[in-house]
Amino acid sequence: MNASDTTTRIGWIGTGVMGRSMCGHLIDAGYPVTVYSRTRERAEPLLERGAAWAQTPGLAAREADVVFTMVGYPADVREVILGRDGVMVAARPGLVIVDMTTSQPSLAKEIDAAARGNGASSLDAPVSGGDVGARNATLSIMVGGDPDVLAQVRPLLEVMGRTIIHQGPAGAGQHTKMVNQTLIATGMVGVCEALLYAHRAGLNPETVLEAVAGGAAGSWSLSNYAPRILRGDYAPGFMVEHFLKDMEIALEEARRMNLALPGLALAHELYVAVRAQGGGRDGTQSLIRALARMSAVEWDVAPPA
Amino acid sequence: MNASDTTTRIGWIGTGVMGRSMCGHLIDAGYPVTVYSRTRERAEPLLERGAAWAQTPGLAAREADVVFTMVGYPADVREVILGRDGVMVAARPGLVIVDMTTSQPSLAKEIDAAARGNGASSLDAPVSGGDVGARNATLSIMVGGDPDVLAQVRPLLEVMGRTIIHQGPAGAGQHTKMVNQTLIATGMVGVCEALLYAHRAGLNPETVLEAVAGGAAGSWSLSNYAPRILRGDYAPGFMVEHFLKDMEIALEEARRMNLALPGLALAHELYVAVRAQGGGRDGTQSLIRALARMSAVEWDVAPPA
Repeated sequence: MNASDTTTRIGWIGTGVMGRSMCGHLIDAGYPVTVYSRTRERAEPLLERGAAWAQTPGLAAREADVVFTMVGYPADVREVILGRDGVMVAARPGLVIVDMTTSQPSLAKEIDAAARGNGASSLDAPVSGGDVGARNATLSIMVGGDPDVLAQVRPLLEVMGRTIIHQGPAGAGQHTKMVNQTLIATGMVGVCEALLYAHRAGLNPETVLEAVAGGAAGSWSLSNYAPRILRGDYAPGFMVEHFLKDMEIALEEARRMNLALPGLALAHELYVAVRAQGGGRDGTQSLIRALARMSAVEWDVAPPA
Repeated sequence: MNASDTTTRIGWIGTGVMGRSMCGHLIDAGYPVTVYSRTRERAEPLLERGAAWAQTPGLAAREADVVFTMVGYPADVREVILGRDGVMVAARPGLVIVDMTTSQPSLAKEIDAAARGNGASSLDAPVSGGDVGARNATLSIMVGGDPDVLAQVRPLLEVMGRTIIHQGPAGAGQHTKMVNQTLIATGMVGVCEALLYAHRAGLNPETVLEAVAGGAAGSWSLSNYAPRILRGDYAPGFMVEHFLKDMEIALEEARRMNLALPGLALAHELYVAVRAQGGGRDGTQSLIRALARMSAVEWDVAPPA
């Protein structure tokens, strides 16, 4: 397979906000794409742009050279790849399976072993950059698996992302994503506590940010989420429910490795509180409302959207 | 007083790593400076550059138009400003006291009230930017107090720092610094946990950083401290002992405001562990060793310096 050649046949599984944008870039680049998603309706925009429809994940894989999966939870990854009508059942020798879902490193290894057993191969290739990165094809893609297989499919990943880095054997892409999420989770706790402190101390949050955001306290989260929080925008760039899933994977892996991560564990518990208060489908920045509520601080001036 | 005029007489109290650099800039700019520090020896480099020596804080203030204090702990601030031989005893009407120590907002208000009672005035003006910022005169200075008084001394602050922002009435500068430290503390927990996770998962930390540092997980701490940690450099940019002091002030203020800050509280406890393990005078990045030790992870390849 030479994936720079646009006759390379693509199977695409999963058409959520991320998957739809990413798959769309492959269609735009001229690759023949067959799509499966749980509800056909969500695939319609891609079918209108020329993608073929498959009734099952296995049927999306049957004629493909490369199958991408971008679904919700590890259980979904397991089902679409290893399940009864899944990709693996239909895998021809030489097929490359690329799971771009944020999922378990251990599952990535299991898929890798199953693929090898079928003369196929697999990569775990979760992404960061969110809906905007998916739309603008600027994702960072963290890849685990055989580097030669990555070299084969790199032209396809370059259609979807800007930074594509091999991190190690099967599972290493997922582990790298867990490092990423650990940083984001603990950072968001800091951003929200800092804004609450500023609020309670009677400071003007705008001038505070002006003083601190450019220095040693600065972060992407502070620069990007603090302004949204301050204008009451809790719309999901990234949804609390999905963030909880990621943190749970990271904590589970850490426990397996006998590694205590108290900061991440605390962030997780606080996000459980966000979900308990009804914010499961809000953006991750809605953490500030749970922290405010914990201390009975009047936070939202306007009622929640 | 017109502080652009270099006949403005300066009193300077406190000649630690920060204070020495900052005071040096004022000497270089041509202002007449009288210095007090607890041990004369530490003031010597400034005396050699032309500063006069004062036997007490009060004597440093007696002939001054503006007195700066840059000492260690709130107790030191109290002693040099409000103590028996302190600045306030010697304060002439019109004196401006500028405390640049990271200290308690409540103490800043107390000093402000005392200064007004003597026909003097005061600002709280803690800084961020560390030893490097002090040396290069690129500090960020967060100012609380009367904005007219800030306007008077701004030319002096501009000799020492790059970003000088008025944050509100007395204490607001200190509160802003607490916001800054809250962000740094929680962020450092994330950086250290992320690096430990990467290590235990067998990843190459360099390629992991390449993938995550430029995106949503990015921060000043990650870009600046992770590389130091990875080369085993625990030398203090900022010392654990001083960081503990700052976090204790922030937590105390938060409690006074009835505000729970679980992330900051956790960071504080972890830094208590760093100190317990002998790292009180190491840099704040040495947090990773306490976290590693907690999970019996072999972290340092080389023995601690």
